[in-house]
Amino acid sequence: MSEQVHLAEYLFVRLKQLGVDSIHGVPGDYNLQALDYIEPAGINWVGNASELTAGYAADGYGRIKGVSALITAFGVGELSAINAIGGAYAEMSPVVHVVGTPPTAAQNAGVVLHHSLGDGNFRIFADMYAKVTVAQANLTDASTATSMIDRTLRECVLQSRPVYIELPTNMVSTKVSARPLQRPLDLSIPHNDEGFEDAEVELILAKIYASKQPFIIVDGFTAALDITKEADELVRITGFPTSTTSFGKGIVNETYSNFHGIYAGEAGKQVYRPWVESCDLILRIGPLASDVNTYGFTTLPNPKKTISFHRNTVEIGDSNSFNNVHVKPLLRKILNRLDKSKLPQYDPYPDLGDPAEQLRLLPPTKPDGIIDQETFWQRISTFFRCGDIILTETGTPSIGGRDFVLPPQTTLINSGIWLSIGYMAGAAQGAALAHRDIVHSISKLSSTTIDANSSAVIAANPPTSRSSQQTFSKRTILFIGDGSLQMTVQAISDIIRNKLALTIFVINNDGYTIERWIHGMKAKYNDIQPWRYLLAPAFFGADMDSADYPIVTHRAEVWGQLWDLLEKKEVQECKGLMIIEVMMQREDAPDALKKLVANAARRNSGIKQELANGHGTSEKAISAAG
Amino acid sequence: MSEQVHLAEYLFVRLKQLGVDSIHGVPGDYNLQALDYIEPAGINWVGNASELTAGYAADGYGRIKGVSALITAFGVGELSAINAIGGAYAEMSPVVHVVGTPPTAAQNAGVVLHHSLGDGNFRIFADMYAKVTVAQANLTDASTATSMIDRTLRECVLQSRPVYIELPTNMVSTKVSARPLQRPLDLSIPHNDEGFEDAEVELILAKIYASKQPFIIVDGFTAALDITKEADELVRITGFPTSTTSFGKGIVNETYSNFHGIYAGEAGKQVYRPWVESCDLILRIGPLASDVNTYGFTTLPNPKKTISFHRNTVEIGDSNSFNNVHVKPLLRKILNRLDKSKLPQYDPYPDLGDPAEQLRLLPPTKPDGIIDQETFWQRISTFFRCGDIILTETGTPSIGGRDFVLPPQTTLINSGIWLSIGYMAGAAQGAALAHRDIVHSISKLSSTTIDANSSAVIAANPPTSRSSQQTFSKRTILFIGDGSLQMTVQAISDIIRNKLALTIFVINNDGYTIERWIHGMKAKYNDIQPWRYLLAPAFFGADMDSADYPIVTHRAEVWGQLWDLLEKKEVQECKGLMIIEVMMQREDAPDALKKLVANAARRNSGIKQELANGHGTSEKAISAAG
Repeated sequence: MSEQVHLAEYLFVRLKQLGVDSIHGVPGDYNLQALDYIEPAGINWVGNASELTAGYAADGYGRIKGVSALITAFGVGELSAINAIGGAYAEMSPVVHVVGTPPTAAQNAGVVLHHSLGDGNFRIFADMYAKVTVAQANLTDASTATSMIDRTLRECVLQSRPVYIELPTNMVSTKVSARPLQRPLDLSIPHNDEGFEDAEVELILAKIYASKQPFIIVDGFTAALDITKEADELVRITGFPTSTTSFGKGIVNETYSNFHGIYAGEAGKQVYRPWVESCDLILRIGPLASDVNTYGFTTLPNPKKTISFHRNTVEIGDSNSFNNVHVKPLLRKILNRLDKSKLPQYDPYPDLGDPAEQLRLLPPTKPDGIIDQETFWQRISTFFRCGDIILTETGTPSIGGRDFVLPPQTTLINSGIWLSIGYMAGAAQGAALAHRDIVHSISKLSSTTIDANSSAVIAANPPTSRSSQQTFSKRTILFIGDGSLQMTVQAISDIIRNKLALTIFVINNDGYTIERWIHGMKAKYNDIQPWRYLLAPAFFGADMDSADYPIVTHRAEVWGQLWDLLEKKEVQECKGLMIIEVMMQREDAPDALKKLVANAARRNSGIKQELANGHGTSEKAISAAG
Repeated sequence: MSEQVHLAEYLFVRLKQLGVDSIHGVPGDYNLQALDYIEPAGINWVGNASELTAGYAADGYGRIKGVSALITAFGVGELSAINAIGGAYAEMSPVVHVVGTPPTAAQNAGVVLHHSLGDGNFRIFADMYAKVTVAQANLTDASTATSMIDRTLRECVLQSRPVYIELPTNMVSTKVSARPLQRPLDLSIPHNDEGFEDAEVELILAKIYASKQPFIIVDGFTAALDITKEADELVRITGFPTSTTSFGKGIVNETYSNFHGIYAGEAGKQVYRPWVESCDLILRIGPLASDVNTYGFTTLPNPKKTISFHRNTVEIGDSNSFNNVHVKPLLRKILNRLDKSKLPQYDPYPDLGDPAEQLRLLPPTKPDGIIDQETFWQRISTFFRCGDIILTETGTPSIGGRDFVLPPQTTLINSGIWLSIGYMAGAAQGAALAHRDIVHSISKLSSTTIDANSSAVIAANPPTSRSSQQTFSKRTILFIGDGSLQMTVQAISDIIRNKLALTIFVINNDGYTIERWIHGMKAKYNDIQPWRYLLAPAFFGADMDSADYPIVTHRAEVWGQLWDLLEKKEVQECKGLMIIEVMMQREDAPDALKKLVANAARRNSGIKQELANGHGTSEKAISAAG
């Protein structure tokens, strides 16, 4: 690499080094010049049909790959994507949002340019973005631009949250030093104070050893905290009864005998809640204490008996909160020092249920039986395989999917707080692409000779992956309701354009069923226009007879049709796009959904419950601290 | 009406009184309870497939009807629509955005609710919206809520810009006094100071009488300033040579003999610009001085010789700027006092060209000739009829559409500064619905007996209409490029669902042709996924054999096919959805577009031109003042 490079080259080479093999986005005036630098940096341009789907896809890509990037135009383009970036912020997905902005001279002079509000103020959109990103850089000065890029990207990866970079058109080809690119970006976590960390480790181990009825709750920020492996090890080695939240589902191996599904508080099995409430130690990993993820705050454990592991904070009991402790080295040290012989033993082991056993005990379906929400989500689990990435959109899929019985090394993506319907179609495109990019990187690493210099860079920057998979099935499977799919149906075009392998189960229940249960069961406003979903591939321009990218579409109205379909080899191993429309009843919903929305209705009317129990405020403070 | 009503009822009854006959939006948690009050208020619920299309549609509805409303959920829903509201702000479309928010107790306690960022801060999205709306109301207090609603709605209509209303779920059914509803909302413009106004009128009249070579430029804010009739009268009565900007096209009757098309500065006919520059008086009505609307600032007249009419400001020459002057009464007084005998006479009248004549002089097309951008836009004008609403999306349609030869009483919608591709599909849905609502109101007014009380309210609040139409053809015609349509294709579902009469010309030129001309003619990033656009009605669930809502789809690859189509009665009088896919060459573009982007490229590289000419800053200040 020459000593000087254009600023845009610097940016994209850095992104590539971090593991961004594909960039999502939409071209537009003020970003076109920058786009010229993407393919030369070895990065694939996705070319989305809309900015919102691009943003959602970048989020999905980031959740699997550990980092991702999105490019939009100034003003119009970026505002179309801000909902996606808000979600990435709320749920900790690392997205680098690059905005091509007007030339600095025009901005400084306040010229009335298109894509602005016409008031000469070019900071308005950046001000909005500052509220939903953890770092911002406006690259107006060549002398500071590369260090700003490095700092911003570092925050994106380390905080696992979106960042915002403005690249004015006149800065794209500004010359900057290439020297920093020769060393990988420093992504090291600041060292914990050894003495302080040791004391905490011993304190936590003592509490573990002293416990009689311990319990582990693995929550969804575990992946964003990059402690998926540590969490899995903790569950496996301790053998402690373990549940996840809905947001945390799929992070640890759910075939362990000490795994007991999701702890669902007042919406779950009635035996479970009193047992958890009588535990003397609860280890919460990566918690997100939102209403929907805690079944209306009914799964929040007694803080006195809880150790909560956040990114840079560990709360031990209700009074000790240690900040500036980095959770990954802390957990690693706990695992290294853990003396198995000192662990408490359950005898007899409590009867908390075995999700796999519950699936086996379901009565067989009748071939002409209507497909019901109450058992569909368990039953469909027989279709899953090791290595699958599964996504459940907000609505009946996200709540139904809590009942999935997942094979090992599967990854589940659902939404834990943002719950923006439409998100999951975009996210599925991004996840499927990340899936393919990871497989591609691995096969390239093992099959090519690498020169000394680049091998060092690659060794320091392994293809990041958040996924718990070791095996790559190449299958990405999306469950999405009809109303949600309508929001961002363009994602199907993006999937076809990029030839991504994806299986989509469209749950067609004729409207916003989750909203019906919240309010307005028969109301017209919860109806939607009935689409012919199976025409999507043809409409979006797929080659319907392609051998290398097969298109498969089916409808299942009764159980018999569904099982017949799922037995087909072309369905099990679809290398192209498959859409299966599953017809369900308009007002059918999983039992958990009915309970959940009853809680929500109660909260909407007065919110007294969670204020009374006193957990609300401490959870709030931690969540803000991240 | 009883003495007390629920707060949501108050809000929707007020909106209905203002002329909001249909409300756009998407249901979601935190707004469902409010939706119950829409139909009882006599308002039609549109039920859009996505918030962005709903926002765009509300903007389009507002541009025709003078006011419109949009409802979304808190957080996720509102952020998906913020690009649309930004555009409504930039281009002065009056949209009332109502957001259903969580209960006040939960907000005050900072509970970690879904659709929030999880940090306990419920003000973040309102803070963003404050940047793109002219008034905001958070209805947390029953004692002030109705006056806040009235004040906010008044600002929306009078400033013709979006406003933002937060309605917490627990406030929906709060009881408030119904008394204010008995009087229509006060929408009167504050009176101008009579003496002050008289002096200005005389000053302006003196300049008009003294001029030897006067010229009128009608710009796009004329409609938003509610002075469409006054502008048309001024053009007709003075007989002064008149042009519009592209944003202002269609506002005055373009069949007047003194109308000469769009003044296109350096992108136009070379004879025109020196003539304008030698004028001694230029009357600019409702100006928007953006780069794209001024052909790269080359149409900005010499401020010394210009009188510019803004909403509350009149600039006379380069030194006299009168604020707190309301343009509508001012213009009305000028027209009332205008002594025709004192007007300067052109002899000979300058040769500025006659758009209709230019159309007649075009050579006939060859039946197998490829449809070209250079003449398509003029030629298609033969399809237009009195009363049509025509929309041209940003790209080749908006620039090509500058060549339309419009019959009287047509309305043209294009974008003057925001230029968000995808806007126009939503806007077309909104405009078609506004069109139908106006026809419906008029027929209802003329056919029903009205009781004394409601007739007073209706008389004070006539069905507002921005459209210059007197005749209602019921035709709404959209021209949109393939890349733009992909952004918000859901709008077609909304159109079908609401059985709106709409003709869509999809310009299929295989990608973002306007971007190709700006940068990257052959670049992959300017390509798009090729869709089968004519499958849209089937995909979106239209009844393909309906008699009352016919679906018509055609493709035209050569001129002969296009003319054959346009001669059919089913095409000329389509009462349903018609999609005509017009195939054009990938790199073909109207000449004006090529010139315009050459300017833009020059500006992006240095922006020196418009700073040098010195108009930039004064335009900027006025635009901010609105």
